[in-house]
Amino acid sequence: MTDTASTIQARAAGQHGAGFGRRILALADELATWSEAPDRLACTYLTSAHRSVAAQLHAWMQAAGLDASIDAVGNVVGRYASAHPGARTLIVGSHYDTVRNAGKYDGRLGILAGLVVLEALVKAGEALPFHVELIAFAEEEGVRFGTAYLGSGAIAGRFDPQWLDRRDETGVTIAEAIRSAGHDPADIAMLARRDLLGYLEVHIEQGPVLLDSGLPLGVVTAIAGAARYRVTIRGVGGHAGTVPMAARHDAFAAAAELALALEQRCRQTPGVVGTIGQIAVTDGAANVIPGQCELSLDIRADHGGKLDAAIGYVLAKIRQIEVSRGVAIDVRDLHRTPVIPCAPRMQRLLAGSIERVGAAVCHLPSGAGHDAAMFHGVTEIGMLFVRCGNGGVSHSPLEIVAEEDAGLAAAVLLDALKNLHDAV
Amino acid sequence: MTDTASTIQARAAGQHGAGFGRRILALADELATWSEAPDRLACTYLTSAHRSVAAQLHAWMQAAGLDASIDAVGNVVGRYASAHPGARTLIVGSHYDTVRNAGKYDGRLGILAGLVVLEALVKAGEALPFHVELIAFAEEEGVRFGTAYLGSGAIAGRFDPQWLDRRDETGVTIAEAIRSAGHDPADIAMLARRDLLGYLEVHIEQGPVLLDSGLPLGVVTAIAGAARYRVTIRGVGGHAGTVPMAARHDAFAAAAELALALEQRCRQTPGVVGTIGQIAVTDGAANVIPGQCELSLDIRADHGGKLDAAIGYVLAKIRQIEVSRGVAIDVRDLHRTPVIPCAPRMQRLLAGSIERVGAAVCHLPSGAGHDAAMFHGVTEIGMLFVRCGNGGVSHSPLEIVAEEDAGLAAAVLLDALKNLHDAV
Repeated sequence: MTDTASTIQARAAGQHGAGFGRRILALADELATWSEAPDRLACTYLTSAHRSVAAQLHAWMQAAGLDASIDAVGNVVGRYASAHPGARTLIVGSHYDTVRNAGKYDGRLGILAGLVVLEALVKAGEALPFHVELIAFAEEEGVRFGTAYLGSGAIAGRFDPQWLDRRDETGVTIAEAIRSAGHDPADIAMLARRDLLGYLEVHIEQGPVLLDSGLPLGVVTAIAGAARYRVTIRGVGGHAGTVPMAARHDAFAAAAELALALEQRCRQTPGVVGTIGQIAVTDGAANVIPGQCELSLDIRADHGGKLDAAIGYVLAKIRQIEVSRGVAIDVRDLHRTPVIPCAPRMQRLLAGSIERVGAAVCHLPSGAGHDAAMFHGVTEIGMLFVRCGNGGVSHSPLEIVAEEDAGLAAAVLLDALKNLHDAV
Repeated sequence: MTDTASTIQARAAGQHGAGFGRRILALADELATWSEAPDRLACTYLTSAHRSVAAQLHAWMQAAGLDASIDAVGNVVGRYASAHPGARTLIVGSHYDTVRNAGKYDGRLGILAGLVVLEALVKAGEALPFHVELIAFAEEEGVRFGTAYLGSGAIAGRFDPQWLDRRDETGVTIAEAIRSAGHDPADIAMLARRDLLGYLEVHIEQGPVLLDSGLPLGVVTAIAGAARYRVTIRGVGGHAGTVPMAARHDAFAAAAELALALEQRCRQTPGVVGTIGQIAVTDGAANVIPGQCELSLDIRADHGGKLDAAIGYVLAKIRQIEVSRGVAIDVRDLHRTPVIPCAPRMQRLLAGSIERVGAAVCHLPSGAGHDAAMFHGVTEIGMLFVRCGNGGVSHSPLEIVAEEDAGLAAAVLLDALKNLHDAV
């Protein structure tokens, strides 16, 4: 392609993008009208609001000219078949469930970007050399049943049948919820796909990196690995006035030392983050030295070696604090997820598309988990991040995406579909 | 007194002390049988359990030969009058209310030590050149109405009539509680005393200093001054995976920095202690960077200059953390009590008595507040601390006092009464 042709295409993508952006934001507003809560957005797995959203997505996919269906786990699938029946399938996906008190774009932005792009392809009668399935995953946030990735896990062949027995707060199992929605849990095993060409996901960044860099889009290099722990510190309680400092074994002071050591270690290595998001002093009172406290410890990194090194440092620091402060620290492993690299080919594809629509290319890791992670080892994955406004806030009603950025993301997705040449 | 006479007296005090100790612990056990809670000790102001304890103390004082009465605020007073009608009065006092889930000795040890000592004086027919009033104060802990020192405050002339309108959790005012107990709140103002020779209080240490020093008794040098604050830290919340460390304004990390700075500063100066006993992250979750947290801040010192210096350092540190971390920290003053020095004459008196009963003399500040503080500026105060077992734990059912130590404390009190020569 000549420079002139590229410029013309970028301008066209930009114009196209503006329409895409308006449409995506309007559809996201419409989806957000269904909620379990009267005053805020909450749409958790297979609740009434969630099933209404699924029905709406199904209707929109049909109207867009896709072959639409809702599968046994609640995923809404819109298929745009290739003229080559033996071709492999590219999945374009993200999730439509939300956290409680959510924003309108986390998950849904990627579904709606896929919808407007496929609608444009159908309208233009543009054939692709591979099938595309737009999949709106039913569950990614893990809110209702404490298990995440139910939707993408099913498609990726990672749905553990034991999950079906998990219960929500009211005692309903996943199996019961699926049956109530008119599906048969036994059919979930058949959703696993092995005919995939790749997986692409557009997602709001949920952080401030693009915003701080002044860039609308970013190519995800990897989905960070994470380790989550529950830490219990047992010291010795006492009267806040009568125990000299030298005689104290203050459980909260030990927690504070751990928090600062965690922060300092993570600051040393770009791509590593560490967070203590929960802390509670048992029977805390202003005039009582904390005898026990519990806290959450979350460490993530975009590279396995970095994650291991940070965890090793923090666990060693915990042992050191135990000795120096005369406290007992119990560290319970809650979960550990490995670093998921995005496929170099998909990163190159998305970077090329970003250039072609006239934006600057930026690479960044994803600190949050995404449906894409489920497809690692199943097919090649690629992720496109869209700038998150409002300081990068997410999982909040304050989450925003600019219309232009949403449009640009759709334009990049469209370009990527056109340039992903399958060897079929 | 010759050395030989002193040795004989010490041996006698020791023998006397053994009987005193057994008796004190038995009486404390008996008082602890009245409680508001079925499974633990709780005896808060003017509850039924509290009034039963008052009636019991009144009966014991009468049986000991004291002129006993219950005053308008609920204090139980046992008077041992001097042969000199114009003499001044020494108060021997402590409180009989307790915290919830209390130990048996906090407050009551001092009342019972006074009881057995005055009983011995009455039995022996030993006259004193001043009147003694044993006062079992009705309220010191501030549990039921959130206002402490109701009993000693009344005697010291510091009872604020506005307190009468304060309500407990069920909406009952102090005035109503007093009327229900058969007293007239209007009579409280008349309880204020200005005819005092001094004030002596025996109290369990509620800390580990004597225990760690291997000493049964200590002379209190001062009741620590205290400053209590409510601190609110407002940072910026965010996703624990997606916000790089350098872009964070973590409210809990700021709290951790404050906690360690507080600890380090207080460790530098003996007699200064600082405690963060309560902390809460608002809407804390393991995968969310804390956007806001609230904590209690308690700083105490045995000397006004030390207290001011420590407070000044911590407040300056808070301003520094605000700037360096880009967080907003609101510090709300909850209360401030000045350092209360014990009278040098009373300290010398108690030290002499400790020597005469054959124990080693030790001086220490009191980190906790006590009824004695109410009498500062009213009369000369002296306090004797008794070793607290079990690591120094107090405000807990684990609080213990050794029989020997309780006996020795009573022997010291007896000796002090005999050696406190009033200039009447």
